[in-house]
Amino acid sequence: MTSYVIGVDFGTESGRAVVIDAADGRELGSSVYLYSNGVIDQMLPAPDDDVRLAPEWALQDPDDYLRTFSQAVPAAIAEAGVDPGDVIGVGIDFTACTMLPAKADGTPLATLPEYRREPHAWVKLWKHHAAQPEADLINATARERSEDWLPRYGGKISSEWFYSKALQILDEAPGVYDAADRLIEAADWVVWRLTGVETRNSCTAGYKAIWSKQEGFPGDDYFGALDPRLAMIIDEKMTRDIASIGEKAGELTDEAAAWTGLQPGTAVAVANVDAHVSVPAVTVTEPGRMVMVMGTSTCHLVLGEKTANVEGMCGVVEDGILPGLFGYEAGQSGVGDIFAWFVDNLVPAEYFEQAEREGIDVHSVLEREAAKLVPGQSGLVALDWMNGNRSVLVDVDLSGMILGATLATKAPEVYRALIEATAFGTRMIIESFEESGVPVNDIVACGGLPDKNKLLMQIYADATGREYSIAASTQTPALGSSMWAAVAASAANGGYENIDDATAAMAQLRDEHYVPDPAAAAVYDELYAEYKTLHDYFGRGANDAMKRLRTIRARAPESAAD
Amino acid sequence: MTSYVIGVDFGTESGRAVVIDAADGRELGSSVYLYSNGVIDQMLPAPDDDVRLAPEWALQDPDDYLRTFSQAVPAAIAEAGVDPGDVIGVGIDFTACTMLPAKADGTPLATLPEYRREPHAWVKLWKHHAAQPEADLINATARERSEDWLPRYGGKISSEWFYSKALQILDEAPGVYDAADRLIEAADWVVWRLTGVETRNSCTAGYKAIWSKQEGFPGDDYFGALDPRLAMIIDEKMTRDIASIGEKAGELTDEAAAWTGLQPGTAVAVANVDAHVSVPAVTVTEPGRMVMVMGTSTCHLVLGEKTANVEGMCGVVEDGILPGLFGYEAGQSGVGDIFAWFVDNLVPAEYFEQAEREGIDVHSVLEREAAKLVPGQSGLVALDWMNGNRSVLVDVDLSGMILGATLATKAPEVYRALIEATAFGTRMIIESFEESGVPVNDIVACGGLPDKNKLLMQIYADATGREYSIAASTQTPALGSSMWAAVAASAANGGYENIDDATAAMAQLRDEHYVPDPAAAAVYDELYAEYKTLHDYFGRGANDAMKRLRTIRARAPESAAD
Repeated sequence: MTSYVIGVDFGTESGRAVVIDAADGRELGSSVYLYSNGVIDQMLPAPDDDVRLAPEWALQDPDDYLRTFSQAVPAAIAEAGVDPGDVIGVGIDFTACTMLPAKADGTPLATLPEYRREPHAWVKLWKHHAAQPEADLINATARERSEDWLPRYGGKISSEWFYSKALQILDEAPGVYDAADRLIEAADWVVWRLTGVETRNSCTAGYKAIWSKQEGFPGDDYFGALDPRLAMIIDEKMTRDIASIGEKAGELTDEAAAWTGLQPGTAVAVANVDAHVSVPAVTVTEPGRMVMVMGTSTCHLVLGEKTANVEGMCGVVEDGILPGLFGYEAGQSGVGDIFAWFVDNLVPAEYFEQAEREGIDVHSVLEREAAKLVPGQSGLVALDWMNGNRSVLVDVDLSGMILGATLATKAPEVYRALIEATAFGTRMIIESFEESGVPVNDIVACGGLPDKNKLLMQIYADATGREYSIAASTQTPALGSSMWAAVAASAANGGYENIDDATAAMAQLRDEHYVPDPAAAAVYDELYAEYKTLHDYFGRGANDAMKRLRTIRARAPESAAD
Repeated sequence: MTSYVIGVDFGTESGRAVVIDAADGRELGSSVYLYSNGVIDQMLPAPDDDVRLAPEWALQDPDDYLRTFSQAVPAAIAEAGVDPGDVIGVGIDFTACTMLPAKADGTPLATLPEYRREPHAWVKLWKHHAAQPEADLINATARERSEDWLPRYGGKISSEWFYSKALQILDEAPGVYDAADRLIEAADWVVWRLTGVETRNSCTAGYKAIWSKQEGFPGDDYFGALDPRLAMIIDEKMTRDIASIGEKAGELTDEAAAWTGLQPGTAVAVANVDAHVSVPAVTVTEPGRMVMVMGTSTCHLVLGEKTANVEGMCGVVEDGILPGLFGYEAGQSGVGDIFAWFVDNLVPAEYFEQAEREGIDVHSVLEREAAKLVPGQSGLVALDWMNGNRSVLVDVDLSGMILGATLATKAPEVYRALIEATAFGTRMIIESFEESGVPVNDIVACGGLPDKNKLLMQIYADATGREYSIAASTQTPALGSSMWAAVAASAANGGYENIDDATAAMAQLRDEHYVPDPAAAAVYDELYAEYKTLHDYFGRGANDAMKRLRTIRARAPESAAD
């Protein structure tokens, strides 16, 4: 009997469902649901669109997640032309930390009339950046108390993470905080709605909510030191019962089965994070191989046999990526975003006109022109901090820099320098891992960027001195989710015993490798030395110009938030 | 009787003749001759256009200067509708150091068939930058020998100057050097062709050929130390007889009168440099007032009662600007050029489309958008070294930098930051003057930039904390040349006794002043502190990244020269 699994990948703008053949990982059908309310960052959806949001806010509508099930899943099944009765499991992955307040039965506060006009009742999307004061307090208090979990997160908790967002609700809308029986990751909330059972996955618990398998959560006294009303947050609004990645969360309820057209009782995997779920989907189940999910930003994931404290990491979590291994996460907060910023704001018409003449993307024109240069020929070196630095420095107040411009500098040279800067940013992360004893021998890239940008991948190989492979699937998160679905379904039901077996059968790489060119790598060693000097000079306190400029800018009467 | 004077301004691309009423400085007619061979920087003119030039070369055709007389001068007289018999004097100004090898009778080697295909026989334009190795030797030798003239030039001689270019001829084309009876500034060569008399003006001799009224030229032993064949350069190919600015060089020969339509015997002033001749043309004849000639680059000129050594100045020359005073010169090698580079290479279509809709220049659109920002609101600070640093650091190997970019950074913000960077570059120069005891109380701006760019001028006022006036004439060099022509003609012939009298009658300022706004100036004090820190970090050896990047770039096989 043929068995199918469904992976659903909840992104920032849309949710994508894919139908996968459990035997070999082939994608048989897919469908995307564009969230009707998208990213809510200006005003609440109608009819409450007179409620304006402050700068740095980013919300979502929980109903958009459910509509993904009722629209994208049936459409994907229809496209695949499979019998829903042959679907043995469902797995989901999500952006994180994306969290919401809910009642004890899972009803989101945002869907209740009495809270609908209260922004804090809505889902806080991962890129909601308005909780920086709360993050500052969380970090200062942890440092004061020498909390021993702090080094696991590179010494700094992000404003994007769970307690920063929770504390902002408490600070600014204590009524919402009080009314929330549950504060929960959207990933887990979705699985709850599918199965009727509230589970909390080890991935978001570990990376975003400071949980560890050995130590559990920070102590109540720590939370109490942040705010006495927060002291019991774990037991009151969360749970200490954390389900490991790879477990079955439950089975589709009748209601959820009706939304999707699947059978009640279909296995549902414990939820996971989009980047992390990609690791087995690109064949990586062992230490020493880094996975890079490259898109608007880049997420770096490595498996380790032991825990190590790596400077400025996003976190290390046992069972965080695969059960039985320590999952390390690092990231660059701007990669594709930086190239897009440059193209949108600083590229003249001639390149767009050329692209139009050829019927190709302007990025392809710039890449082709940039490819005519050899390393170092632009004369430029840049710092890739236009969206701050997530790892190694963990500092959102840093900003971008371009050095070496002459009157002969052209747009493709800047474009190439920006690509190189992001490659150097990755090299900083690799070197931080290796200096802490976490080896990075070779790299598998997935996501939107490696799919099309050959120059970019060759620059990464040359500039980091590592070999890169490329994932076969362009939908690695959804594929990964379907693999976990196959594990949740179990071998007895047409799935797999464990993720290693699922990976062996379902995951593939392209027959496409990027190997460092020795001559180019030698030049990049020199350029990287320049990058590193500037990285340390501007990033480690010798010259805090970027922070002072930000402070000066913040005083401007109508300064745009960014 | 009405008296008229003619000023001829020899620029980089063209020569401009103006006819001026000697009584009040009114411009009655003008005409521009676009050099038929322009700037020669790729190959020699036809039929010798198979001779390619190396990178960094920039030549001109001496016949283009003579064609300026035969075409632009008669056209200007015709436009003015004056009787050529009422023209009492001619004055010229020139770019410098722009120099050529000639025979004893003034025939340029480039016009002789046997030398025509030899690039070194042609006029080396001011921006010929291929003599850097020679400049390096000149500086190293001077430092070794502790030559006492070196501090007068801020401790460094430029590759653009006279001996750098002369030594390059000797190094690379010794036959041309031997055949050259005279090595002469184009300014003096033109006056020679007009009058039949070879004169050498104190301005170019002082600023470009290391002459001083007290000390004369460097000693023959110094030149011998550079190269034994160069030891007698002054007596063999130049002269120690230097004519002061303000003297009459001679009178129009019959031949020159025939070119121009003027009367033989018309007084011709000693030649002068375009920037320097502008000083009295903008009413400045006394210490304490800086003149800024602002265009593609900016030249800063100040008069002093005594000599002082100012860091990184282009030079201090007695009689170099006005007789009886010490003329100080400093400069920024990229100003308007930087804005033009940005517009040509990094400004997207929407600004050009807006400009076209309104029928205005794209710079005006960017200026208007930039004017909506308050100081500091861009969050950016830049180093204005895209064309190197002429003063205070005197280093052509420095390059540009932009710091503080975020994903929200827009083109008008960069445009404003570039304007601010050039203003801070001027402030560095002002502060260097004042630290050396040369006061700069207020500033008069002339040239192409102050004419139209109100935002730029206000930023300069705010960022330097100085008040700026604007010259009434938009052709200040040609006006200045005509004023010197009036002095050369003498009061007895309808001109003036001295430059003070000519200035009082002929020079004017606009009724337009830019006064620092205290609030803006306070913010700029903060931003200038950032600029200064970066200026010193990248410019004074703490981090020589810009030089290393240039070295790496130079190794690229097809590196474009710039």
